[in-house]
Amino acid sequence: MPRLCKPSVSVPEYVITMEETLEFAEKAHSGKPQLPLALRLIQNTGVRKRHIVQPIEETLRHPGFEERNRIYEMESKKRCPEVIDQALANAGVAAQDIDAIIYVSCTGFLMPSLTAWLINTMGFRSDTRQIPIAQLGCAAGGAAINRAHDFCTAYPESNVLIVSCELCSLCYQPEDDGVGSLLSDGLFGDAVAAAVVRGSGGTGIELERNSSYLIPNTEDWISYAVRDTGFHFQLDRRVPGTMEPLAPVMRDLAGEHGWDVRNLGFYIVHAGGPRILDDLGKFLDVDRKVFRHSWATLTEYGNIASAVVLDALRRLFEEDPPMAGATGVIAGFGPGITAEMALGRWAVDAPTHRD
Amino acid sequence: MPRLCKPSVSVPEYVITMEETLEFAEKAHSGKPQLPLALRLIQNTGVRKRHIVQPIEETLRHPGFEERNRIYEMESKKRCPEVIDQALANAGVAAQDIDAIIYVSCTGFLMPSLTAWLINTMGFRSDTRQIPIAQLGCAAGGAAINRAHDFCTAYPESNVLIVSCELCSLCYQPEDDGVGSLLSDGLFGDAVAAAVVRGSGGTGIELERNSSYLIPNTEDWISYAVRDTGFHFQLDRRVPGTMEPLAPVMRDLAGEHGWDVRNLGFYIVHAGGPRILDDLGKFLDVDRKVFRHSWATLTEYGNIASAVVLDALRRLFEEDPPMAGATGVIAGFGPGITAEMALGRWAVDAPTHRD
Repeated sequence: MPRLCKPSVSVPEYVITMEETLEFAEKAHSGKPQLPLALRLIQNTGVRKRHIVQPIEETLRHPGFEERNRIYEMESKKRCPEVIDQALANAGVAAQDIDAIIYVSCTGFLMPSLTAWLINTMGFRSDTRQIPIAQLGCAAGGAAINRAHDFCTAYPESNVLIVSCELCSLCYQPEDDGVGSLLSDGLFGDAVAAAVVRGSGGTGIELERNSSYLIPNTEDWISYAVRDTGFHFQLDRRVPGTMEPLAPVMRDLAGEHGWDVRNLGFYIVHAGGPRILDDLGKFLDVDRKVFRHSWATLTEYGNIASAVVLDALRRLFEEDPPMAGATGVIAGFGPGITAEMALGRWAVDAPTHRD
Repeated sequence: MPRLCKPSVSVPEYVITMEETLEFAEKAHSGKPQLPLALRLIQNTGVRKRHIVQPIEETLRHPGFEERNRIYEMESKKRCPEVIDQALANAGVAAQDIDAIIYVSCTGFLMPSLTAWLINTMGFRSDTRQIPIAQLGCAAGGAAINRAHDFCTAYPESNVLIVSCELCSLCYQPEDDGVGSLLSDGLFGDAVAAAVVRGSGGTGIELERNSSYLIPNTEDWISYAVRDTGFHFQLDRRVPGTMEPLAPVMRDLAGEHGWDVRNLGFYIVHAGGPRILDDLGKFLDVDRKVFRHSWATLTEYGNIASAVVLDALRRLFEEDPPMAGATGVIAGFGPGITAEMALGRWAVDAPTHRD
């Protein structure tokens, strides 16, 4: 059965703290009516610091969509290989063992996808399937895990590499004053993450079932306005309330699998913001601490889009790996509004007996 | 075993003939050194007419990336539903029977993907998987078929809808004088196509094996330059020669499956241009007429990107459906340089016996 191995994550070297974000917001919105709202939104994110690919002074300038995308290409090529090498090592597989690469990223656009460059430069086989997904936003981390699960279910001998490259700071739009933009200015961070789903073997989460859910008629609640200046993040005020309709879907999914969603061993969910995590705890009837790994990602890195679930998962592996057989859920949330959910069980690689 | 049912295809109402294309090129490049090359490239495409979503006068203006993308959204919403309804009818399934939608398009960018709108407006289930792929370009038609094949292999009771929405005329860049742009101005056309891959049953191509291949170190041969004015098509002069390395890959794929690539019952391949089809015939050692459906698509619609293989396949269904059991190949080619190939066998739905 497909097994999701330990993710590797890297965050860039430039750090911006909440205090600095507040200072920049005070300057940017000085004397404007939205200033108090901007400051309150930033403070409420609970994001203590974020990591970004350029010094903050560079980030605050908008050099045009073309230049932004050029930086995206340069930075993704600089940062992905090391994270991928580590993810392969974590899973105990080599580049030549990989049958498909699922590359998810909504913060830059390359055609061909970075997958072609990765195959050419990192020793992947020429027949590696390329599955680039750009338009599932923050839900794409969950989607990548689920599509890797599907692929390994179809071909049990295969291994799938997931890469999430989210350089959210390259979508910062200094001219935007909408609530989505004001919030995102204090919320999103940059990160690169990777993980391998092995067709069999390895230590990690044995993927048993996955599911997707689109909340009806919410397609314009999280969206990009595509403009000459690139991607502009747009957020409806109703988004933080979406855990109320999604929690029952997660409960039913667990129920169909014979599990009680209130009594799982681990919960790895997208940390869209503090209200998302608080509400999900409330509507699932679980303690907010079950999301401690997602809280840690949010606090230390910000919302790193599709990489959140992979980073929260890394923390689970590093800080308190569950007992073998422990059950759990993974869920990504993003535009659509789409939830990509997976149920799995902690499994430890059986050592090969040599005697 | 997964079966690819009859595609549905629609082309827009505005038509531009080769003669008109040549006239426009004469005006656009009047007095410039590239004029003879532009005219020769256009004549050599073999494209007699193309269909586009706006009158040619509108197409020749560039209203900005934002406005282009707004038109993409409007036109895709206008044109996709009817094609999808027809594809569902062709396959004998309802929207509620669909488990995943693979939406491929490289000529506009929406987040969320059009899949969210389709699910909300066309009666698909809320748990339909969304698999939007934007960055495989012309290879995405083959990739969509192959990923649908994989999905139905993992879940044999499922059905996957493929939608290809390629409004290439919205990527026309009037200021570009590069050879790729000059060629594409006379080559690309607009089309919307859809098809269903059924987990079992239906009449069409039973998908037996698929494969992907990236020609090493050609990632910059077909690419988009992403600029403030949108996507700019870039083509290396070596692209037309890529069938020489790809033909042996297709031959080996067939060979591994116990088939002789020279003796198949049908050949549905991407019609990137006339040289692609001529060379593929030469290097596969097959008559050029085996690609008659691809030639017809190229001549009558132009290169409609990822929709080519679906339109060529539609012609096969309508004009000369093979005998049951006939073997064949489907291949999409695009940026990477990537080939997405499938082997299948013509299968006819067994009527239900009622006596």
